[in-house]
Amino acid sequence: MTAERHVVAVDVGGTSIKAALVDRDLRAVEVLREPTRRTGETVDVAQIAELVNRLGEGHDVVGAGIAVPGIVDDDLGLVRAAVNLGWVDVPLRDRLVEATGVPLLVRHDVRTGGLAEFTVGAGKGAADALFLPLGTGIAAAVQVDGRMLGASGYAGEIGHVVVDPGGAVCGCGTRGCLETLAAAPAFARRYAERTGRTIADAAEVAALLATDPDARAVWRDAVDALATALLMAVTLFGPAVIVIGGGVAEAGEALVGPVRDELLSRLKFQRRPEVVRAALGQDAGRVGAALLGWQAAGE
Amino acid sequence: MTAERHVVAVDVGGTSIKAALVDRDLRAVEVLREPTRRTGETVDVAQIAELVNRLGEGHDVVGAGIAVPGIVDDDLGLVRAAVNLGWVDVPLRDRLVEATGVPLLVRHDVRTGGLAEFTVGAGKGAADALFLPLGTGIAAAVQVDGRMLGASGYAGEIGHVVVDPGGAVCGCGTRGCLETLAAAPAFARRYAERTGRTIADAAEVAALLATDPDARAVWRDAVDALATALLMAVTLFGPAVIVIGGGVAEAGEALVGPVRDELLSRLKFQRRPEVVRAALGQDAGRVGAALLGWQAAGE
Repeated sequence: MTAERHVVAVDVGGTSIKAALVDRDLRAVEVLREPTRRTGETVDVAQIAELVNRLGEGHDVVGAGIAVPGIVDDDLGLVRAAVNLGWVDVPLRDRLVEATGVPLLVRHDVRTGGLAEFTVGAGKGAADALFLPLGTGIAAAVQVDGRMLGASGYAGEIGHVVVDPGGAVCGCGTRGCLETLAAAPAFARRYAERTGRTIADAAEVAALLATDPDARAVWRDAVDALATALLMAVTLFGPAVIVIGGGVAEAGEALVGPVRDELLSRLKFQRRPEVVRAALGQDAGRVGAALLGWQAAGE
Repeated sequence: MTAERHVVAVDVGGTSIKAALVDRDLRAVEVLREPTRRTGETVDVAQIAELVNRLGEGHDVVGAGIAVPGIVDDDLGLVRAAVNLGWVDVPLRDRLVEATGVPLLVRHDVRTGGLAEFTVGAGKGAADALFLPLGTGIAAAVQVDGRMLGASGYAGEIGHVVVDPGGAVCGCGTRGCLETLAAAPAFARRYAERTGRTIADAAEVAALLATDPDARAVWRDAVDALATALLMAVTLFGPAVIVIGGGVAEAGEALVGPVRDELLSRLKFQRRPEVVRAALGQDAGRVGAALLGWQAAGE
């Protein structure tokens, strides 16, 4: 056993589980990635425990942080519902503590990424900040007065505010949610609906912006939808910084710049937030989970 | 000087200032009410100090709480902007502490009312709760994870979320804000626009509901606007209890019942909150300010 202390950071997804052994400087010393294992529809909690235990062999692991999607009660470490994992009311923290013996915190994946961006990333030092990763789905991590909002797992579901009344039906059953226009799959789907041509993803739509009016229309609708949703969020939460991340934002200023301009043009008396790209990219989940691990260790 | 300790609770409004001497059981022992005094456009801070000092004569006053409208930084006790009072960047707490020598907290009037409703009123015991008083303007006090959101004074401006894109121009300059349909003055104004007949207020519209289709249309639009705004708020804040108060809600279940039904019918995966009438009515500001006073006294 080495003298140096480490934590394990785990990012649980429907397709793969990423786990890393992380040092006090938040550097990943060792990384494991496995396809997510299921029994029937249900992801095996045991796989997560095995990854924590395997990474810990020969190391002094003092804590672990686990990021999971769904409706997650961070305080209880309880996953109320995670459709992609087939979980309902899974007391994940208690089960993992039992199976690993490691002090451990569980948190919603977006709030975990937000913790990273607000602690060492693009929102560093802001007491009032909002992290908006645009992926397969959309949710926000919201910090107000220096504290991340949980509300037993119900806070921050900005992907399901209505920005287009009477628009397309969302997976949640409501018409015109933000996700129908600005989640990653919406870009290719909406481009195909307009043109009959199939493309892969938002990055391909972005690549066509200079030459293709249909791509521009799809992009403009997404920008407008994001500005509408963020206007609600600014009016209700009052963030000083908005950090936009996730796969779609990797298109860079093509998205963040227009969203910033459109949002700021609509503000009246509200706080005028900075609108910036995420700093940590795909690492936000791991860094946030590592920060949780150090919290669990009491540091 | 009596042995019993008291606090002073002050509710500052554009028309009048209400102040009360309040005991440990939150009972008002003595109440003063004065027209709000101005020098030019600007309300005199000295009037508030005088009321605190006058109520304190012959009593052991150990703290005071001051509720004020506008954009208020509760932590700093700083009024950033209060149009009705003619104030910009007034360090109210510091000035009043200097003029009275009493430990003192300043808070936004709606958050003060929310503190009362969440502590001893209709939202008692709820960690995640939203207080929505419908008055001349509309703002919300929002508590998440047991803590009232401040965001340097910018949180909770639900009166200015857009519920009717392209609708009437709000005082803030945006079209279709919640206030244009559901603040107290909107009821009489909208009824007059439809019918050419002048009526006094929302209570008169409520009294016509059984017999007048125009009154019903105005009411229905307000209910729909409130449900739309509360759907956003539930999706973003995740409250377990929504407390509706203010003058308009005094119409009772004619408003709260339909808003509850409409909101609950629109929810999908979101938390399903209780939707209830405020318990403290016009006393919420005084009770909240008294609670602040006891906080200021260190109790």
